Amino acid sequence: MSTTNINCSIITIGDELLIGQTIDTNSAFIAQQLNKVGVWIKRRVAVGDVYEDIWNTLTDEGEKSQIVIITGGLGPTSDDITKPLLCKYFGGALVVHEPTLQHIKSIFELLKRPLLDANLKQAELPNNCTVLPNLLGTAAGMWFEKNKVVYISLPGVPTEMQGLITNEVIPRLLTQFAPPVIMHKNILTAGMGESFIAERLVAFEQELPQHIKLAYLPNYSFVRLRLTATAYDSLFLENELSTYHKQLQALVTDIMVTNTDETIEQLVANLLLQNNATVATAESCTGGYIAHALTSIAGSSAYYNGSIIAYAYSAKEDLLKVSSTELHKHGAVSEAIVTQMVNGVLQQLKTTYAIATTGIMGPGGATPNKPVGTVWIAVASKSKLVAKQFHFRWNRKKNIELTTLNALNMLRELILAS
Amino acid sequence: MSTTNINCSIITIGDELLIGQTIDTNSAFIAQQLNKVGVWIKRRVAVGDVYEDIWNTLTDEGEKSQIVIITGGLGPTSDDITKPLLCKYFGGALVVHEPTLQHIKSIFELLKRPLLDANLKQAELPNNCTVLPNLLGTAAGMWFEKNKVVYISLPGVPTEMQGLITNEVIPRLLTQFAPPVIMHKNILTAGMGESFIAERLVAFEQELPQHIKLAYLPNYSFVRLRLTATAYDSLFLENELSTYHKQLQALVTDIMVTNTDETIEQLVANLLLQNNATVATAESCTGGYIAHALTSIAGSSAYYNGSIIAYAYSAKEDLLKVSSTELHKHGAVSEAIVTQMVNGVLQQLKTTYAIATTGIMGPGGATPNKPVGTVWIAVASKSKLVAKQFHFRWNRKKNIELTTLNALNMLRELILAS
Repeated sequence: MSTTNINCSIITIGDELLIGQTIDTNSAFIAQQLNKVGVWIKRRVAVGDVYEDIWNTLTDEGEKSQIVIITGGLGPTSDDITKPLLCKYFGGALVVHEPTLQHIKSIFELLKRPLLDANLKQAELPNNCTVLPNLLGTAAGMWFEKNKVVYISLPGVPTEMQGLITNEVIPRLLTQFAPPVIMHKNILTAGMGESFIAERLVAFEQELPQHIKLAYLPNYSFVRLRLTATAYDSLFLENELSTYHKQLQALVTDIMVTNTDETIEQLVANLLLQNNATVATAESCTGGYIAHALTSIAGSSAYYNGSIIAYAYSAKEDLLKVSSTELHKHGAVSEAIVTQMVNGVLQQLKTTYAIATTGIMGPGGATPNKPVGTVWIAVASKSKLVAKQFHFRWNRKKNIELTTLNALNMLRELILAS
Repeated sequence: MSTTNINCSIITIGDELLIGQTIDTNSAFIAQQLNKVGVWIKRRVAVGDVYEDIWNTLTDEGEKSQIVIITGGLGPTSDDITKPLLCKYFGGALVVHEPTLQHIKSIFELLKRPLLDANLKQAELPNNCTVLPNLLGTAAGMWFEKNKVVYISLPGVPTEMQGLITNEVIPRLLTQFAPPVIMHKNILTAGMGESFIAERLVAFEQELPQHIKLAYLPNYSFVRLRLTATAYDSLFLENELSTYHKQLQALVTDIMVTNTDETIEQLVANLLLQNNATVATAESCTGGYIAHALTSIAGSSAYYNGSIIAYAYSAKEDLLKVSSTELHKHGAVSEAIVTQMVNGVLQQLKTTYAIATTGIMGPGGATPNKPVGTVWIAVASKSKLVAKQFHFRWNRKKNIELTTLNALNMLRELILAS
């Protein structure tokens, strides 16, 4: 790269990350936020609650990055050894930090709960750090400097860590460093495998300048193409990156879902809002996951009315008015039934559009004619209905996710064609 | 610890992990599986698609662990630089591996897709590794040894990586190493904060022998207590750990949800199956997430009939027979309405039990009397109904998750009391 990166290492502390009981979502949030302001995450390291391992990792990462962010290990229980360790590592002493003590007391007053010794001890902080106030909890953040490297220790509770990153860490980093600009531009494609797209883009990739990279982020048949550029001149970079982004769009017009970084559920939500339209779902195999995807977006009540999740035959008959004769003739996983389901919910919930799903998610439920992964999806408006069969070959969780993605994409296509 | 650990480092490769576009779930799977057979994950490191960074990380981790597992970077596109790097690092040459070539050809024949050069290149593998066949994809696993350290390279696609860990990696590791036994015993508690539980367990923790550790894994008001023990004598360890597990249960009887490592949805599923009972949900604010939780478990059709997701007032009236007068009098988020919802779905879906939720998940939707996070949950059978109000104070996503957890826990309590 033609620019000097400001590099950051993220250290997450806690045995729960190493035995696989907890999935690390904190690192992804920190990476996204720092990336936006031009700080490059060079490494992420997870270590257990082992004194020596934490100590050595601080030294190792300080040699590799100018910024080291540490999360976790600051809770009130005795399996947390991080604070005394940090205090010793940076050569300070633990003393009561009066503003933090007052803050902790005020939280417990608000919650009307007795204050324990363990909570009071959270106000003891190293006297050689800058304390970063944690408005959402009792464990304060700490900012240390050693050998020109900045070390920032944050609690592991996601909401508290997020507040500290946004309100304290990023403003301070921008004051102390002058990071380059890192820009991303995305294209989401559907229906073509990663290697086929790559074959098509060989010449384009070869002509990219060194400071612009193309990455393929496949989620099965949905592949996100991401251009990433780094430089100090943001105006020039924006123009340059836009040019390549347009070239890339021209090369994948036939398979492009969007040229933004939005998810499919966001795209569908925007289309519904723009068209003042509503949607309902009739779900069998997805068991409410499409409804969840649609309602995970704030303000979804503007376009989402409701769903009928009909798992049992009786629920399909009673709630969606599916014909009992047809159910027993074709089986629930069939074009006839998915068509009746989508029409049934469209009438019941009186919406502009509807989605229906029925399929075999596994591991059980297969029949000789219908292996695990057989799925029918239908989308409909009053005047148009599209039904498609799919054959997924993954586990239950992934089959549910893929059915949801494809159903939302089919709805997107139907709205655009309306 | 009194035993020598077999330590493992996990290295995940890919820029997408460092810009926060992808959350690393692979490491959690690997950690769980290796932990079961007594291999301790000492460190997890994520690095980008940068040649020098990957190279140095291989060296660093090889000095810290006897086993290094590398995932990602093996796809067919040109942003993947890992295979040539590994080949050079271990001093081999890339040659066509005939069984892998045949396997790739057979996959493309099955899918009836043309075979590209990029796919054929996946059959070129270092001639100094043991090839681990990948039955579910085209990127083979590779097993190298250098300075008495085992390095294992696996593709990043979760299903492929999982198959290789189970079928190839674990059997080979057990042959080569003689790992100690690592045992976990869990207790899930509800309704008491981490620091209050810790205060109660001070004496218990102090008396634990050095090779047994207690960890607190809080998920808001649900705290998992985990005892972890390491030794070579599994029979003695099982007895010893059981004794401490029983002592711990006796100390938290009043707040214990389960003494297993099961999730709340699994507990509820088991109870329903044991009682030959069924459940339906009427969801407003959770938008199908409870239905999704119940149907994420294989075989859920035995106890789950369906749901009515009623977001709009009209859906509550039409599908759940909620009184329009009462809706406008009390508002949707009220005891009166949640009670009507739970009774409505119980009648509509003719199940043994029902759950209903209504609340304000945020960020919008608050009223002067009902701030964001106000939630009513009801659970009912034909003879009994329990409704409770909650005040959550997190973001939309977390409020939905917490409502779901509490609703399932209320159902669990209702079934146990029936």
